[in-house]
Amino acid sequence: MTSFCTATYRAFDEKADFHKKATGIAVGLTVGSWTELPEAKKKDMEKHLGQVVSVDVHEPEAGAAPGSLAAERYADIKIAYPDVNFSRDIPALLVTAFGKLSMDGRIRLLDLDVSDGFRKTCPGPKFGIHGVQELLGVHDRPLLMSIFKSVVGYELPELKEQFYQQALGGVDLIKDDEILFENPLTPIEKRVEACMAAARDASKQTGQKLLYAANVTGRTSQLRAQAKKAIDAGANALLFNVLAYGFDALQELAEDPDINVPIAAHPAFSGAMYPPRHYGVAPQLLLGKLMRLAGADLVLFPSPYGSVVMPKDETLAIAESLTRHEGALKPSFPVPSAGIHPGLVPLLLEDFGVRSVVNAGGGIHGHPMGTAAGGQAFRQAIDAALQGVELEAYAAEPGREQLKAAIELWGVKK
Amino acid sequence: MTSFCTATYRAFDEKADFHKKATGIAVGLTVGSWTELPEAKKKDMEKHLGQVVSVDVHEPEAGAAPGSLAAERYADIKIAYPDVNFSRDIPALLVTAFGKLSMDGRIRLLDLDVSDGFRKTCPGPKFGIHGVQELLGVHDRPLLMSIFKSVVGYELPELKEQFYQQALGGVDLIKDDEILFENPLTPIEKRVEACMAAARDASKQTGQKLLYAANVTGRTSQLRAQAKKAIDAGANALLFNVLAYGFDALQELAEDPDINVPIAAHPAFSGAMYPPRHYGVAPQLLLGKLMRLAGADLVLFPSPYGSVVMPKDETLAIAESLTRHEGALKPSFPVPSAGIHPGLVPLLLEDFGVRSVVNAGGGIHGHPMGTAAGGQAFRQAIDAALQGVELEAYAAEPGREQLKAAIELWGVKK
Repeated sequence: MTSFCTATYRAFDEKADFHKKATGIAVGLTVGSWTELPEAKKKDMEKHLGQVVSVDVHEPEAGAAPGSLAAERYADIKIAYPDVNFSRDIPALLVTAFGKLSMDGRIRLLDLDVSDGFRKTCPGPKFGIHGVQELLGVHDRPLLMSIFKSVVGYELPELKEQFYQQALGGVDLIKDDEILFENPLTPIEKRVEACMAAARDASKQTGQKLLYAANVTGRTSQLRAQAKKAIDAGANALLFNVLAYGFDALQELAEDPDINVPIAAHPAFSGAMYPPRHYGVAPQLLLGKLMRLAGADLVLFPSPYGSVVMPKDETLAIAESLTRHEGALKPSFPVPSAGIHPGLVPLLLEDFGVRSVVNAGGGIHGHPMGTAAGGQAFRQAIDAALQGVELEAYAAEPGREQLKAAIELWGVKK
Repeated sequence: MTSFCTATYRAFDEKADFHKKATGIAVGLTVGSWTELPEAKKKDMEKHLGQVVSVDVHEPEAGAAPGSLAAERYADIKIAYPDVNFSRDIPALLVTAFGKLSMDGRIRLLDLDVSDGFRKTCPGPKFGIHGVQELLGVHDRPLLMSIFKSVVGYELPELKEQFYQQALGGVDLIKDDEILFENPLTPIEKRVEACMAAARDASKQTGQKLLYAANVTGRTSQLRAQAKKAIDAGANALLFNVLAYGFDALQELAEDPDINVPIAAHPAFSGAMYPPRHYGVAPQLLLGKLMRLAGADLVLFPSPYGSVVMPKDETLAIAESLTRHEGALKPSFPVPSAGIHPGLVPLLLEDFGVRSVVNAGGGIHGHPMGTAAGGQAFRQAIDAALQGVELEAYAAEPGREQLKAAIELWGVKK
């Protein structure tokens, strides 16, 4: 039986025959031409021929707001590509489904449904949500992640102190800034040693575990060695700028049995691909399904709040892609990021649930009582939200002045 | 002295203070914050601080057509990033200049000017235009490249015959289809052996040399081995789907002393990034400068003709990026592709000059007298254009019925 990977596109055109276009894609991106084939050859070629699964044409709606999607003529087209046509790696899948086609007018890749066979070659997250929860011993609340405030140009003792203050606040994960590359001031192995020492010191105060995601950077062929160097120095997680290297580079890190720590995927550069309506790749595929298939244990993406904004339905679609049941493929932690302060925690919980990560930078470091208090305010907000108590009421109790101060500064979003 | 890589952005906003936005980028993507730094620290940090080079605000022009660029409010912003902040690799450069920023509203990366120091770490094309011309012994005319008609599902003898017919037509380069991955019917080493044997046979007829660019595919860490396998089997060029793997994967292939053949970069997936006005990466950077920096000897991009169309000014900008004088960096061959037939050759020559590659698929295989005649028609068209003779007049002479037939089918574009 032929197995297929199915791509869903949205093609825009004011007058195209979308059914004809769909057939053109299905044939053109597989066997090249069909009508010209000799009859004898057709039998051989049938198993290689792409199939049009569906073509849903959307005609402009009368009275739709000009410029809105409803006012446009487009079609959602599903094409099934036989697995036999391409090798079982994400680059081959992307080149097959959206290589040449990406350049062919106004067309957007919405989704890719891989076959069971293809998925079996993508082991997915090594830890996944449950595995990361196990490492931290935390199962009953969203995790709290923090980001260094500033990293470029700082010396080790300064980073170590930043790390320590974050850890004291009770965060579960701390990640490097994505723009912290290998550098003489804070080379990865020294940075990891210093930060993990700070983590141990803080742990004596907080009594909790902590993952530190060190940024794996540099030349492609050296990524594995760089990751190993970080792990050998004590790193218990990694950060990776997936889109600067391609999904397969992530998959190779995730597959490597020696890289036995969770990997957090950073969305750097993804904005070059997902925002426009007529082009590119839908965010739930780019930052959702493909990241999970390639093995990210945690995936950062823009939150619907704050300065770097993604529409809420898109963020929810990413989270859904990362977490829905997919056979043996483990789910990845959604990490909606940017512009997060404690007053957003109830909303975040409502949107993304307990199996998500609350990730803050400025909302921790910018706390009026300092970085450690910033983390504590978040933990208090998480406790309140889990108990279904209004943040303002929760913050009014003694010992919760950190949350109180955060709310005074940033407010509570309803 | 501080050296910098300078990024040029186009940011769109109806009312933003673009100067403030520029300062936000320059500080935010380097030292994080400046005003909060203690005075003593500022001295240390100065060399890490991004610089606003220029902000050119464009106000909507009165009377501009609605929807046109002229009708929009935008600013072209140049920011200089100190080299000291990032490692000398293209992923680090992209993450620094357009990592988080790519997700920050309507903003497009137009250009990256790397420092001399950064450029020195990018050796660029190993062969470049002159080197490829040397390999072929052709200096005085554009090269002619052809593409297999259909590849998926074909057996070796069929591919060999397709190759032979193309070679007989007098083409200089033949490339694999970008969707031909490692497969049991035509594994790369067998394919290369068969095709290079066909090339030798054809050479006895044509008396000319030929490069065969075999498609290097598969897992990232195996690309080098795959390239070596092709070369060991006799491949004298390679094709690579750069954007499915990232620019650094190309650079590692190009830098490898054992990969001593020209590399042709395929633009598959690039359409996910360059088309929209408000987002993504300008094509002259994505398919021009970065491909050259990373070491592509030849770069395919959509021609301004045919079905997969790119506006002419953008194709010219790509070609200019690939070929302009850049110190010791060799130029790369521009290969405008898709929809090319012999009747376009005079225009192509006018647009892209002698130092370019005429690349055809359907315009060769679809020739009424067959594939070999298709190549010959192109060679005749190239001769005519170089002599400044009208194609119709040139084709009227005896022995040029191939060009005549091509013109009758496809016409001549003026």
